Amino acid sequence: MKKLILPATALAVSVSASAQAQDVPIVRDAEYYILEEQHGERWATEDTEIDAVIAEFKALNDGNPPNILYILLDDVGFGDMGSPTMNAVRGYKTPAVNQIAAEGMRLARMYTEPSCTPTRVAFMTGRHPVRNGMANTAVDISGFGLADKEVTLAEVLSDVGYNTVHIGKWHLGDIREAWPNWQGFDYAAFPIHQQGQLTIYHDDGADEEVAISLYENNYDSKYTLDNWFRSDASAMVTGVEGVRNENVREVNMEPGERWTEEKYHQMNVDYQEQAMEQLRMLSAKDEPFFLNYWPLYPIVGPRTTTDEYTTPNGGTYVEKMKLVDEWIGDLMAEMDTLGITDNTIVIVMGDNGHATKFSPQSGFTPMLYRGGKGATSEGGVRVDAFVRWPGVIEEDTVVNDITHVVDLFTTLARIGGATDGIPRDRVIDGIDQTSLLLNGDTYGRRDYVFLYAINSLEAVVKEHIKLAIPGGSIENAILADFYHLFRDPQEKYPVSTEIGAWGGAKFVRMIERHIKRKAQYPDEAPGLGRPYEGIDNLRPESVEAVEEYLFMVGTPQK
Amino acid sequence: MKKLILPATALAVSVSASAQAQDVPIVRDAEYYILEEQHGERWATEDTEIDAVIAEFKALNDGNPPNILYILLDDVGFGDMGSPTMNAVRGYKTPAVNQIAAEGMRLARMYTEPSCTPTRVAFMTGRHPVRNGMANTAVDISGFGLADKEVTLAEVLSDVGYNTVHIGKWHLGDIREAWPNWQGFDYAAFPIHQQGQLTIYHDDGADEEVAISLYENNYDSKYTLDNWFRSDASAMVTGVEGVRNENVREVNMEPGERWTEEKYHQMNVDYQEQAMEQLRMLSAKDEPFFLNYWPLYPIVGPRTTTDEYTTPNGGTYVEKMKLVDEWIGDLMAEMDTLGITDNTIVIVMGDNGHATKFSPQSGFTPMLYRGGKGATSEGGVRVDAFVRWPGVIEEDTVVNDITHVVDLFTTLARIGGATDGIPRDRVIDGIDQTSLLLNGDTYGRRDYVFLYAINSLEAVVKEHIKLAIPGGSIENAILADFYHLFRDPQEKYPVSTEIGAWGGAKFVRMIERHIKRKAQYPDEAPGLGRPYEGIDNLRPESVEAVEEYLFMVGTPQK
Repeated sequence: MKKLILPATALAVSVSASAQAQDVPIVRDAEYYILEEQHGERWATEDTEIDAVIAEFKALNDGNPPNILYILLDDVGFGDMGSPTMNAVRGYKTPAVNQIAAEGMRLARMYTEPSCTPTRVAFMTGRHPVRNGMANTAVDISGFGLADKEVTLAEVLSDVGYNTVHIGKWHLGDIREAWPNWQGFDYAAFPIHQQGQLTIYHDDGADEEVAISLYENNYDSKYTLDNWFRSDASAMVTGVEGVRNENVREVNMEPGERWTEEKYHQMNVDYQEQAMEQLRMLSAKDEPFFLNYWPLYPIVGPRTTTDEYTTPNGGTYVEKMKLVDEWIGDLMAEMDTLGITDNTIVIVMGDNGHATKFSPQSGFTPMLYRGGKGATSEGGVRVDAFVRWPGVIEEDTVVNDITHVVDLFTTLARIGGATDGIPRDRVIDGIDQTSLLLNGDTYGRRDYVFLYAINSLEAVVKEHIKLAIPGGSIENAILADFYHLFRDPQEKYPVSTEIGAWGGAKFVRMIERHIKRKAQYPDEAPGLGRPYEGIDNLRPESVEAVEEYLFMVGTPQK
Repeated sequence: MKKLILPATALAVSVSASAQAQDVPIVRDAEYYILEEQHGERWATEDTEIDAVIAEFKALNDGNPPNILYILLDDVGFGDMGSPTMNAVRGYKTPAVNQIAAEGMRLARMYTEPSCTPTRVAFMTGRHPVRNGMANTAVDISGFGLADKEVTLAEVLSDVGYNTVHIGKWHLGDIREAWPNWQGFDYAAFPIHQQGQLTIYHDDGADEEVAISLYENNYDSKYTLDNWFRSDASAMVTGVEGVRNENVREVNMEPGERWTEEKYHQMNVDYQEQAMEQLRMLSAKDEPFFLNYWPLYPIVGPRTTTDEYTTPNGGTYVEKMKLVDEWIGDLMAEMDTLGITDNTIVIVMGDNGHATKFSPQSGFTPMLYRGGKGATSEGGVRVDAFVRWPGVIEEDTVVNDITHVVDLFTTLARIGGATDGIPRDRVIDGIDQTSLLLNGDTYGRRDYVFLYAINSLEAVVKEHIKLAIPGGSIENAILADFYHLFRDPQEKYPVSTEIGAWGGAKFVRMIERHIKRKAQYPDEAPGLGRPYEGIDNLRPESVEAVEEYLFMVGTPQK
């Protein structure tokens, strides 16, 4: 048997940024080369055909590649949308997403990172966030974020002529360089932080005691010495808006004003209206567009703030899921009206499993797969994902090859004609899955996923077998439990005794390759900076909150 | 608020059999009257419209009601067929059943009894098998079965002119009166027992040690005194065939011959071929038909007897599930050829959750719902169920009202014009769900299910709330755990503290009504008799096995 050797490029040290050009191959993780060695020739043939399809599409589309509308939903688990059968199991309906599923392709084995920020970093950069210090999620003021040197999908698409807009959740840091309008988007409207602040850690959340560590709470605070230990979410910056590489402005908050659930609802409504408006504006231009719409709903806080429950399920998140589905339907209808349905790729997906913390009041508990947000069991990292591209992607199809959200970076860059903009000086985890989209089931180019919980490698999937690494201790991998994901979606019945040590040995080698590659391309720190710099109208309480933060992270070490 | 009182008929003592006539109402369980009191008027209006629809169908169908093809699959759990999404989760495909789902209606909340025999009794009689002594399942020679006095769907349909044929699994007892050709079927081909004998307790099963208590096993039997303690499945009667109310003959087994997995496979192939042949013969007649086809596959025994694994799942049951799906596709294609697709109701469903005993080698583990065959958690009693009636039942629909397999008895009798034949001297649990089939979601007439494990009431479902009775002790029901089945399909997060004692009180009252009704219509014993009487060509070893059985059940009590 032929001995597999990593190609020279895989072993090379980082090339300088100036050497980035189309003749320099993308730097991959080791596992990709294992597959490329076996299938590279076939892939090259397919790619030639794919190039012809894309060229044909562009010829029919005024020379433009397709528009891209990417809708990323927060904390929606596998089976929560896009299927009438699963709708029945849950007791609510998602007709708009079901329609997109019927008109497009379900990526049935789409993996994400186990929580919001890492998944979003993975999509934007095509890199596992463990590589760029963004595997962790900050909920409070934190002074870090997506580094400027990271190259985002917005940047590479912008470089080839796309108009780029981001609307909604971002949550990639509270420092300026991390914000979407500094990361390649021409225009952005987004909250600096996330729904922890916006729905739970505010006064309404305090009233219902859905969170601890709040500034105001339902008890006598006579023993409280340290007010800074608690969060005052209203002092944190809320929603901001701005254009590319310019300061942003906070909107809809006056100095001294308190954040409420009602304001959160309005923020959601505003983002939906802005998404609709941007769709109209972008479609009127000559260039293609990339509209990145990341709704904050279905995540919602106190139960009492929803007026009416309109599903048999009656969960808080479910109620907002139904609303978001309606909004997605509105966007699709607007696209029909604008005549851009046929030249726009629409992707709808979740960013990780649903948040089990609020089960079952949310309406969601783990269902098909075990675990939820935060877990590296399948329930934490498997999501519903649908791609519609009329006339190019076959409608009403289901593909069962493994994909990971990082792949969308590479795939959309390729379809947008922006592959040359992908940096060549760092590992790109995203794999070009255009062949899967165009040719269908079994045309995927990935048979593995590395699953990190923040910075700890907790599980590895290869084919349909999953290795759960005990305590994250990689040297024990050979002794670890394996699960057969088709036969046992809930990872409850280890098949280790069947697969045996030979399977373990293969997994250990796979992990060793992955780690060896990291020695060549080490994980890096995130961007660091002063929180909230670059906001023109910072409220006095926000200025004070930053001072408190700086004192807390600085002084105690003195 | 109006006080609910059970109507007089509900409190009356049993009417004599001679009084059975169409003006005597069907005797119901108490819960039905609670609903009828609230919705009876609306139901009557709907029923008038439904009668018109059925009359119109008959007018267009030479005066005949529709043919009925009922395909009941063994040990196939919820999500195992009929959905491309769930196919992807499991790693195999069921295109034929998916097609039936697309052309018909998914009954998304179809409940069964928790195992094979009880579910089949429920379908045939419209009664929970606890009422007629058939809630238990015998795997060996047993001398009991479905009593002659039970009135089956085959009998009531036969009485109004249907030709009736049963092919495949029966498993309602090894005494003559229990057999399909004595229970209303003009012709029947079936094994007396079930797959325990046919796939596990035979010599191939012994070789692979998939079962204990076998006649031959892979050890030195020098300490064995009692050969009768072990089963010799080859001595038990296997498949028989016969016509109505006449003796049957065992087929494909000579005296002294051993049963093998190969013979089991051939039995399955034969039943499929007979189902195809019967379809052709029945469709050529002037009368409508009821073809009851209950495949033995996907249940299969030793892993080594499958030559080739052709799905990514690779499970033993999955491999046969794929085969059964192909066979169902063949039946559907044959119906098209025969021109009977439009005047035939096709129902495909499972009989209980998949058998978790052989997980994950079977390819099945609990998935959407917790538990499997034998459990009263949803995983044991929720099944995939699809009904196709072209032009009458709307295609590609999903209804989420509660249904139970007993309802098919009453519903199919009504559609077949045989309601008058339903006996009036016993409780009929089956509810007429024709309105649900014809009018769709929310037109169901049942909001409850009583879930028995054999003869013990273990759980009660009312609406989307499920009460799990601790240790089957009904007086503790008020303290029991409730589950919200939409939000928590796996019954892991009790919401008892939310629903509180008021919910418990309602459930207790519901159970009390159910028990009070049983005092009026007590549970009865099954039919009893000498095993295997009525088989013309009983093999000598079968005669001997019966003698051993009679000695064992008789002598020790002397």
